[in-house]
Amino acid sequence: MATQGDLISFRPDVRVLDATLRDGGLVNNFRFSDEFVKDLYKTNIKSNIDYMEFGYKASKEIFDPKDFGKWKFCNDDDVFEIVGNNDTDLKLSCMLDVGRTDFKNDVRKKTDSPFDLMRVATYIHQIPSAIEMIEDAKKKGYEVSVNIMAVSKVNDDELTKGLELLAKSPVDIIYIVDSYGAFYPEQIERLAQKYTELGSRYGKQIGIHAHNNQQLAFANTITALRYGVSWLDCTVSGMGRGAGNCYTESLLAFLKNPKYDLVPVMNFVAKHMLKLKEECVWGYDISYLLTAILNSHPSSAIKFVKEGRTDYSSFMHELMDVE
Amino acid sequence: MATQGDLISFRPDVRVLDATLRDGGLVNNFRFSDEFVKDLYKTNIKSNIDYMEFGYKASKEIFDPKDFGKWKFCNDDDVFEIVGNNDTDLKLSCMLDVGRTDFKNDVRKKTDSPFDLMRVATYIHQIPSAIEMIEDAKKKGYEVSVNIMAVSKVNDDELTKGLELLAKSPVDIIYIVDSYGAFYPEQIERLAQKYTELGSRYGKQIGIHAHNNQQLAFANTITALRYGVSWLDCTVSGMGRGAGNCYTESLLAFLKNPKYDLVPVMNFVAKHMLKLKEECVWGYDISYLLTAILNSHPSSAIKFVKEGRTDYSSFMHELMDVE
Repeated sequence: MATQGDLISFRPDVRVLDATLRDGGLVNNFRFSDEFVKDLYKTNIKSNIDYMEFGYKASKEIFDPKDFGKWKFCNDDDVFEIVGNNDTDLKLSCMLDVGRTDFKNDVRKKTDSPFDLMRVATYIHQIPSAIEMIEDAKKKGYEVSVNIMAVSKVNDDELTKGLELLAKSPVDIIYIVDSYGAFYPEQIERLAQKYTELGSRYGKQIGIHAHNNQQLAFANTITALRYGVSWLDCTVSGMGRGAGNCYTESLLAFLKNPKYDLVPVMNFVAKHMLKLKEECVWGYDISYLLTAILNSHPSSAIKFVKEGRTDYSSFMHELMDVE
Repeated sequence: MATQGDLISFRPDVRVLDATLRDGGLVNNFRFSDEFVKDLYKTNIKSNIDYMEFGYKASKEIFDPKDFGKWKFCNDDDVFEIVGNNDTDLKLSCMLDVGRTDFKNDVRKKTDSPFDLMRVATYIHQIPSAIEMIEDAKKKGYEVSVNIMAVSKVNDDELTKGLELLAKSPVDIIYIVDSYGAFYPEQIERLAQKYTELGSRYGKQIGIHAHNNQQLAFANTITALRYGVSWLDCTVSGMGRGAGNCYTESLLAFLKNPKYDLVPVMNFVAKHMLKLKEECVWGYDISYLLTAILNSHPSSAIKFVKEGRTDYSSFMHELMDVE
């Protein structure tokens, strides 16, 4: 399979997206202090990260704002309070979950909003609804990406049809999403080939969002990059649901574009992440390895870890019972 | 490049070597309790791990036994005390460091020893001394492997010459060793091709010993496997110097040979490793990422972690000063 780039030069098509608040928010119910969010924003600017994702625009009909921090909802005005007019090179995004977003009311026109990019997250069976949201967001003036979640559970022929529908939509970027942390690098190679081949036919860019259940999030991200994927999601210290994501630290240390600066991220880790790591739990555990190899949602492993269980073998048998 | 095997079947040439006591011993000066060692031995038997490494046979002229646990020296009689006659399928190994082993006196004939495999560890400039040790161990009746350490620091033409010398020696297995955790999977691909090409010409098997500085130890191990490497080192919970090694848990979960059983390893983790992890420190830290990307020995990062430092940026600049 054709590879792109090498280990010494850099590809100008690469975009790094910091998803700390969004995927990390799934760990602490989006309860980040304003100081944390402001410092992360400044860090991303200094490190020349390309995009920063603030969270979800979740429907307040479905979710009670009392139960979550504000980045579950990403009110435009809350974002403006952090970023002012965001007169910087850092672009801002938020995620719209199909079926859980009141996008007609909550997504303003781009000119009235702090956001540059709307990221639509969909399961394979929701793609027509995703396209409705994509079209809406494009009309409102945004760049738009789409995440087909839990791809490791999707049959290849359904994936092909779903990708073709999306390719014909006005979406700009299509993401490979390994929600269960189930893929090995050689599978990512094949997916990257499938997505980028379609992308080059339809003029779409391709992204990757990896999970660290098998400590492969970084390996899978740079493998995808090598096989032509250009949008790379990461989170500081890998903060994210369950086993977490690709570490921003590892990714910036790998990328050779001189604009990326690892130093502000390391300083942010020293100031904020070490403390946060004591307060809430994410990252590799055997239980996430087990849900990954069984291609299952990590929710049962998250519960296992939360309960302080260490009886991995019984947990494995529980998982195999429901499979 | 040609790959071997696939994600569903298994290759009978694969050998899994548990290096927990040896590489993990570098974390706690080889001070493992007898209960730990006995339980690990039983675990390896139950899991059908192929080889278990007990430690080093270090020279007592150079190292004072008072300063270390007994597995720094691996007296045959200490091993016999754990394994009896080892009437099992598990084979036993220990490591001989070139220049730091009194191999003429300390390595008995195989028939008088508990060991099956002697693993010679050498730097590139010591290869003639390594070959002397290889020949001695072969004459005494052992299987013999050789680790060329710190390969990321070795010029390619020197490596070629060193490999050819070793290929002409009676050694059975030649290891790719990423001592600094500096390699990316695509570099491991190329190394695997180089080593296995030589191996198939000279009838040598090839192994991989990876480090987790960039959280790539498992990814690099399965990449090497895919490109024809068959001897795979791992340690329980990745216990090993600095950032540690490829996790036995991940590797057994990946391998498809029905003989391998993850359950005993998970039970061993629950009984021993979680407690041990509270007593001594190994595993990924930004400082190991930094020594890796600068292709440096992890010793300065080990010191950084031991001192409880978190000023990653100044550490990076210290590293760049000495480079």
